[in-house]
Amino acid sequence: MMLGPAIELGLEVTVLATGPAESAAQGAARVRIGRHDDEEAVRALADEVDVLTFDHEHVPPPILHGLVRDGLAAVRPGPDALVHAQDKLLMRERLTALGHPCPRWWRATGPADVEAALDDVAAEGADRRSARVVVKTPRGGYDGHGVRVVSSGEDVADWFTEHGELLVEELVPFTRELSAQVARRPGGETVPFEVVRSRQQDGVCFEVIAPAPDLDPAAQRSIQDLARAIAEDLDVTGMLAVELFETADGRVLVNELAMRPHNTGHWSMDGAVTGQFEQHLRAVADLPLGSPARTAPHAVMVNLLGGSRDDLAAGAREAMAQDPSLKVHLYGKDVRPGRKVGHVSCAGEDPEELLARAHRAERLIIEGRRSVEDQGGAATEENA
Amino acid sequence: MMLGPAIELGLEVTVLATGPAESAAQGAARVRIGRHDDEEAVRALADEVDVLTFDHEHVPPPILHGLVRDGLAAVRPGPDALVHAQDKLLMRERLTALGHPCPRWWRATGPADVEAALDDVAAEGADRRSARVVVKTPRGGYDGHGVRVVSSGEDVADWFTEHGELLVEELVPFTRELSAQVARRPGGETVPFEVVRSRQQDGVCFEVIAPAPDLDPAAQRSIQDLARAIAEDLDVTGMLAVELFETADGRVLVNELAMRPHNTGHWSMDGAVTGQFEQHLRAVADLPLGSPARTAPHAVMVNLLGGSRDDLAAGAREAMAQDPSLKVHLYGKDVRPGRKVGHVSCAGEDPEELLARAHRAERLIIEGRRSVEDQGGAATEENA
Repeated sequence: MMLGPAIELGLEVTVLATGPAESAAQGAARVRIGRHDDEEAVRALADEVDVLTFDHEHVPPPILHGLVRDGLAAVRPGPDALVHAQDKLLMRERLTALGHPCPRWWRATGPADVEAALDDVAAEGADRRSARVVVKTPRGGYDGHGVRVVSSGEDVADWFTEHGELLVEELVPFTRELSAQVARRPGGETVPFEVVRSRQQDGVCFEVIAPAPDLDPAAQRSIQDLARAIAEDLDVTGMLAVELFETADGRVLVNELAMRPHNTGHWSMDGAVTGQFEQHLRAVADLPLGSPARTAPHAVMVNLLGGSRDDLAAGAREAMAQDPSLKVHLYGKDVRPGRKVGHVSCAGEDPEELLARAHRAERLIIEGRRSVEDQGGAATEENA
Repeated sequence: MMLGPAIELGLEVTVLATGPAESAAQGAARVRIGRHDDEEAVRALADEVDVLTFDHEHVPPPILHGLVRDGLAAVRPGPDALVHAQDKLLMRERLTALGHPCPRWWRATGPADVEAALDDVAAEGADRRSARVVVKTPRGGYDGHGVRVVSSGEDVADWFTEHGELLVEELVPFTRELSAQVARRPGGETVPFEVVRSRQQDGVCFEVIAPAPDLDPAAQRSIQDLARAIAEDLDVTGMLAVELFETADGRVLVNELAMRPHNTGHWSMDGAVTGQFEQHLRAVADLPLGSPARTAPHAVMVNLLGGSRDDLAAGAREAMAQDPSLKVHLYGKDVRPGRKVGHVSCAGEDPEELLARAHRAERLIIEGRRSVEDQGGAATEENA
């Protein structure tokens, strides 16, 4: 999704893809086939570009440090920043040291440490047997992978063998999840997007609404300041997404960091003067940042997660016919259950109407059927 | 500019370009090098795509008729439609036969026919010696090329040798120029954009404002109906642009036709729910058409015509820094005086403010200097 904005900005993009069928390889004018964890492949790419950036966090830090050391390309975000999006233990350590609000967390090297965390959590409540904590693998997790909610250290014994250390966190009793994105140039200029609300199911984002409903201006500003402070403290270049928990007592805690365009910012492609992919390119290419202003009072994004229908293009045609103002984005990926294969978005006056339209289109595309409501039945909507 | 929308629509595009440095070839994943008037090159392209469409009018009709006859690809717009954007004499004949409003016109096979037209024009006015008509080459003209305003048949004697027949038109005393765009699918579905005002200098568009100021709803609808009727009568597929003269006595006359995304529609890329390049792709790929609604009360587009500065990228950086809400589009072309090398656009509330911002950016990019106004001098603006 960076390729379109790159053309308009006059930037030449070379994509490193593991194979020609990868989404980013399908639309790019210049593609190198190679693995992101193959040092030679990454160095060969770096050798022919001015700036190296990322659409995921999985390039090993030693490879990136080597590029910086040898001056092969500007790496943006740099490896010293990116590692905080790669390693959740390092992220927690650093954010805590900087005084940024996090859930309670523990470093665990074995099941006994998980039990100790459970003791800590239970001490505050009533029943030790019902105590639960969240355990995360420090690296490689995404979309709910690498996350388990457990009530015993034995529940993650296998992960200690595989990962050595694990991150344990309190189970935050959040009322909703928010996301704050900020773009930052190498020289330090930052531009925040408005804070949005995201909704997740089984660890996967399925819906975003911009701006976050009922967020008062002071809270909005305070969250934007937090995102900006993290971008500055970690020396991030490009887009930073700070995923947050909002609690019933009004606290905001950092959940995860991503240093790239992020799912919670897709709404901006069709709902803001400058979309997040354009903004990321401006930031990493050290171009002046664009206005993040919305083009409508509200914007909504709903993910397309692989369902029962393989022919997404047919579904897209039906959704486009049904709703000419809706934007459908397909990623050119094969359908697998639960896999993110695209998204839809729309912008307008009434957030409830936007949500209804986006979910109707989503079901039509991935399931090939109208919603219950459209079929004349009860207007019940799962998760809505 | 079709490439970005094609990625989001999930369409694979193969570009036929005369060389790898051509704008469209620079960003495309699939490029064939060959000339658009080389039958073998066009047939080889058609053989590997489902739909063939155009970003100019210069593919010879016999080549396109051959593709249709042999069923090599769907040609959209088809050659029987496209010829009316290729040959101005055929266009005038057909529109006149259909009863669509045109300037007075004459077919000329030699200087004597031009003189006869001058006699016709002078008969209505006072002085035969001051009579003037517009003479156009039927084919190959663009941006003022192939157009002369003459007061004698001898002024175009050279063109008769070269072209055989010429189109002679009355010099229309228009008050302003308008443009009406409509998208049409193969099955007949049409969606009009709002009518815009364009301003030209030496036959080259330099500014567009959407919607056309002070155009009453009835006139808007009547012009949209005219564009739709032309699209239907000529069986156009894709985007049709109808460039129009508005006269002091309230008439509207067709000036030119283009069957592709058109300069007067660039505003829609950043100012409408569906930009004209996306809409053209939807139409020629037979996908449901998108909403042409504006995302702001007004949108303005100003062309970047080659000036004194070669480093447009530096100019773009300065303009982006000066105005974060402005969109700069560079076409990756070498700068030559007067050549269209990009455009800027912005959308918002106040059309006068938008025009001022767009022209300020345009001068900064192509001349490398602030406007007179910015420099603290008199606020005089040529053509504004």
